[in-house]
Amino acid sequence: MGTQLHEIDFTDLSNNSLDLFTISNVNIGSKWLWIHFSAVYIVTIFICYQLYNEYKYISSERIAYFYSSKPQPHQFTILVRGIPVSVCSSVSESVETFFTEFHPTTYLSHMVVHRTSKLRNLINEAKTLSKRLLHLQSEPSQHTYRHIGLFGQRVDLVDHYGKKLVDIEQSVRLEQSNVSLAEETRAAFVSFKSRYGAAIAFHLPQSTNPTQWVTEQAPEPDDVYWPFFSSSFMRTWISKLVVIVACILLTILFLIPVVVVQGLTNLSQLETWLPFLKSILTITFFGQVITGYLPNLILQLFLKIVPPIMEFLSSIQGYISHSDIEKSACKKVLWFTIWNIFFATVFSGSVLSKVSIFLEPKNIPAKLAVAVPAQASFFIAYVVTSGWTSISSELFRIIPLIFSLVTRCCKNTDELEVPSLPYHRDIPKILFFGLLGITYFFLAPLILPFLLAYLCLAYIIFSNQFINVYMPKYETAGKFWPIVHNSMIFSLVLMHAIAIGIFTLKKLSIASTLLFPLPVLTLLFNAYCRKRFLPIFIAYPAEVLIKKDKEEASVPAMAEFYDKLVTAYRDPALMPIQYSVNSESLNRPLMSSADF
Amino acid sequence: MGTQLHEIDFTDLSNNSLDLFTISNVNIGSKWLWIHFSAVYIVTIFICYQLYNEYKYISSERIAYFYSSKPQPHQFTILVRGIPVSVCSSVSESVETFFTEFHPTTYLSHMVVHRTSKLRNLINEAKTLSKRLLHLQSEPSQHTYRHIGLFGQRVDLVDHYGKKLVDIEQSVRLEQSNVSLAEETRAAFVSFKSRYGAAIAFHLPQSTNPTQWVTEQAPEPDDVYWPFFSSSFMRTWISKLVVIVACILLTILFLIPVVVVQGLTNLSQLETWLPFLKSILTITFFGQVITGYLPNLILQLFLKIVPPIMEFLSSIQGYISHSDIEKSACKKVLWFTIWNIFFATVFSGSVLSKVSIFLEPKNIPAKLAVAVPAQASFFIAYVVTSGWTSISSELFRIIPLIFSLVTRCCKNTDELEVPSLPYHRDIPKILFFGLLGITYFFLAPLILPFLLAYLCLAYIIFSNQFINVYMPKYETAGKFWPIVHNSMIFSLVLMHAIAIGIFTLKKLSIASTLLFPLPVLTLLFNAYCRKRFLPIFIAYPAEVLIKKDKEEASVPAMAEFYDKLVTAYRDPALMPIQYSVNSESLNRPLMSSADF
Repeated sequence: MGTQLHEIDFTDLSNNSLDLFTISNVNIGSKWLWIHFSAVYIVTIFICYQLYNEYKYISSERIAYFYSSKPQPHQFTILVRGIPVSVCSSVSESVETFFTEFHPTTYLSHMVVHRTSKLRNLINEAKTLSKRLLHLQSEPSQHTYRHIGLFGQRVDLVDHYGKKLVDIEQSVRLEQSNVSLAEETRAAFVSFKSRYGAAIAFHLPQSTNPTQWVTEQAPEPDDVYWPFFSSSFMRTWISKLVVIVACILLTILFLIPVVVVQGLTNLSQLETWLPFLKSILTITFFGQVITGYLPNLILQLFLKIVPPIMEFLSSIQGYISHSDIEKSACKKVLWFTIWNIFFATVFSGSVLSKVSIFLEPKNIPAKLAVAVPAQASFFIAYVVTSGWTSISSELFRIIPLIFSLVTRCCKNTDELEVPSLPYHRDIPKILFFGLLGITYFFLAPLILPFLLAYLCLAYIIFSNQFINVYMPKYETAGKFWPIVHNSMIFSLVLMHAIAIGIFTLKKLSIASTLLFPLPVLTLLFNAYCRKRFLPIFIAYPAEVLIKKDKEEASVPAMAEFYDKLVTAYRDPALMPIQYSVNSESLNRPLMSSADF
Repeated sequence: MGTQLHEIDFTDLSNNSLDLFTISNVNIGSKWLWIHFSAVYIVTIFICYQLYNEYKYISSERIAYFYSSKPQPHQFTILVRGIPVSVCSSVSESVETFFTEFHPTTYLSHMVVHRTSKLRNLINEAKTLSKRLLHLQSEPSQHTYRHIGLFGQRVDLVDHYGKKLVDIEQSVRLEQSNVSLAEETRAAFVSFKSRYGAAIAFHLPQSTNPTQWVTEQAPEPDDVYWPFFSSSFMRTWISKLVVIVACILLTILFLIPVVVVQGLTNLSQLETWLPFLKSILTITFFGQVITGYLPNLILQLFLKIVPPIMEFLSSIQGYISHSDIEKSACKKVLWFTIWNIFFATVFSGSVLSKVSIFLEPKNIPAKLAVAVPAQASFFIAYVVTSGWTSISSELFRIIPLIFSLVTRCCKNTDELEVPSLPYHRDIPKILFFGLLGITYFFLAPLILPFLLAYLCLAYIIFSNQFINVYMPKYETAGKFWPIVHNSMIFSLVLMHAIAIGIFTLKKLSIASTLLFPLPVLTLLFNAYCRKRFLPIFIAYPAEVLIKKDKEEASVPAMAEFYDKLVTAYRDPALMPIQYSVNSESLNRPLMSSADF
């Protein structure tokens, strides 16, 4: 069940003009192929050189950013999971005992994580109610009355909502005191007096049982993903495994429902469903456009829901921060895109036959060499239809606009939240165009001007969006770069596999033999980069931490910062709430910590 | 170029009696196969349960050993490589500056590593000479005179050697002072005041450039492998890559020379070379034995040189201690054995055809299912011929005996060094019999009594050898167990692959489908064990280190220990030597630190 359905029309329409510029016009054994061969070498070396420089630049920027940053709670804090509890002590006591014993000089405080899903629902309810109340109060002329029940008396809505809000606040307070006593998870944020102290606790294995006292770096306080907080090692591990399996299944089987829906939209089916279109569909041009574009449109719509699905899967995988969830979702969407757009288009046939290709690694280059060049014109069209349009729609943000208009009508609020860029939606998209450029540049160079136009557009539009539209929800500190790097390396190796296949196909076996070292060298280059740069993206080195700690040792503001640090990782659901009395300061306590 | 040559005779001889008990007698689609099926499940679960218990036991023993150990230099020391040096400072100054700045409270001292290969040769020369001198002096009646040169005068040998020794010692001292000034490598042993301090420096990335200040745990001082001391990150990395490639090539291509030599030993060839054997060879029995065993003997002799080769390869891979070299060689020999005895026997045909089997992972079970049961009788014979004989020869240590007799005759020394067990030779051997047991127990259960006999023998003999013969050169502290664990897991998964193939071959596709979860579950079990136990085998956790440090904080003997620690990692080649004057204390300074 490939996506051949929708691409046939593309290639039919464009074959005549575009195929002039593809490698299929080069004769078997032609000397011209050596130009392609040298192009493969030169471009690989050039890209690797650029990747190296960029990795170096970004890692130095990352260090520079750290040096210039103010003291931030997440630099001083780690998250500890799998806290063992003895019979007669609480989680909090257990943490206190452990860290005062083993990290006496650096340990500052801790904050045990609670299960607050119930509480969070109550608070959301209170929040909505108070908003409605505020809206009613702000327009005193519109004080409305309503019948309660079928035969009930008329009541003042402001009065009614006010009472209800007080009730909810009461139960929130009750629940809060319950939660803080009973529903402790076996996880806690532990803060230290220095960055170096936190780093020591993070890097060193703490316990003789490596599944207990598992440490990881804490995210920024506003970045913590409170809802799903799996604390035990086994649960995190199992949910991770389940999510990986779910992801692989989704990635492999995604096209089945898509193709089924696409199959329902053939001409005759459309005519039966929407008879009024009959007259239009009989015109050949419209018929072609609809059968050509409708399946593509359906695919695009299905693809739109993938980033949220992947984000959801990542969120139940046990990550503790929005940033980690987005990073993980970004990887998932990237592999999904490469599989479901590149490989699904290139290899027609059933899902199983596609999977089986990868079970015979020896034949991959040969199969790629046959299938990839055949789809050149489809992908050129794809750059235009999907790339150009998506980047332009990014500028106008039509869907968020409609969505915001609709919600503003319904909810009667004037609130405007500044959006943040969904990295897991946009990075894979751009990287996929990078993959197309790298794999097709020597097969069908005509794709390059289209891609260049896309990239220029993307650069201008995203620059604008970053400056004027989006506000980052968290500081990435360059942590997404390794994904970009790995994706480029994968593109290069894929391109080498295709090139080896092509040269074998064109009976230029010397060239294909001479190409063999290239993927090996590229992978070695990648291995070197992993050793040279990746550690900086995982954790800051001791040198940097100690220098930064020393710099601030004498700053008087630090005492104040430590005071803040102690409560920085408090669950926003456990903060005292006050909506009913003072309606002026509405939302403040929640907004300051949870929404931004 | 398989080893079919030599196994044909085995199977011919034994087919009649042994094949009665193999799975090939079970009819296609027979109900009896379900017994094999359940045996596969039960044995897998049993082995995994045992592996879990054993891993748990050994890791707890490892911790207990650490708690009970006296303070040892390697617990307080790390090795730092890739030390950056500025223009105007030496390596030693650079280390001093770095660690006093970043680890001021815990840093104790350091010892820069020097290039001493030249010096080591000189010292060896002096050592040999002094031994000879001692031998001559101890038997004054045998004072011999010798002509120097063709027409030279007669000289007193004691006098002659004495003078020569003084000369060499002179140049050693000169060289020592040179070396300690000039030939510094960019590596140093850095000692700390506490185990925890050393662990912090080991675990935390030190520098903004992860290829500089690369830290690793120091080995025991006597375990340090001084000769090959690659200090820069790039050199270590490249030599590692080269060694891996060399190992793979050796493993894959090893059989080519073996088969060529084996081919030279067919009957007619032997008769031309050794005509006096002609009369014996014409007797059918002798002919059969020779053509059957001679190729096998040649294979065995070739196999004997593999552990030293692998040890050599590991030693140039950049490991810093004999124990690491042996551990790495142990893994190499294990894979070599599995490839060159198991797979080479099972899959006949050229090397390339064997490699190509692994390029089509889908077909591996089917091919295994056909080939593995056919070799059952060969492997039963192998257990007897190779296993039983090798373990008995271990008891008598014939080769070391002959070797020691020969050297004693030549060298005239009465010295007896206590040997240490070459783990990299014996562990792979035993593990390979484990692999045979696991893969053949349901194909040809007749192998089990033979294996049992082997294992009982091995247990008794090795117990004896450990108590009475060998002396460990270093404390392994259970570090070899993960190799055993991984090898067992590999054997299980291999057995599952064979079982799936067999059930497909016997047209019992439900059984083969039902087996699919088993390898997945086994690998998950392994992944869990890696998380649960492996970290303990890499480094001791903070909890243990801090407790141990605290225990000893008040012990007065620690001051003395610190004094020793400062000089513990001195290169033995840089120690002052004195052979010529005081012949009583010969060898002492060297023996105490370098030989044991």
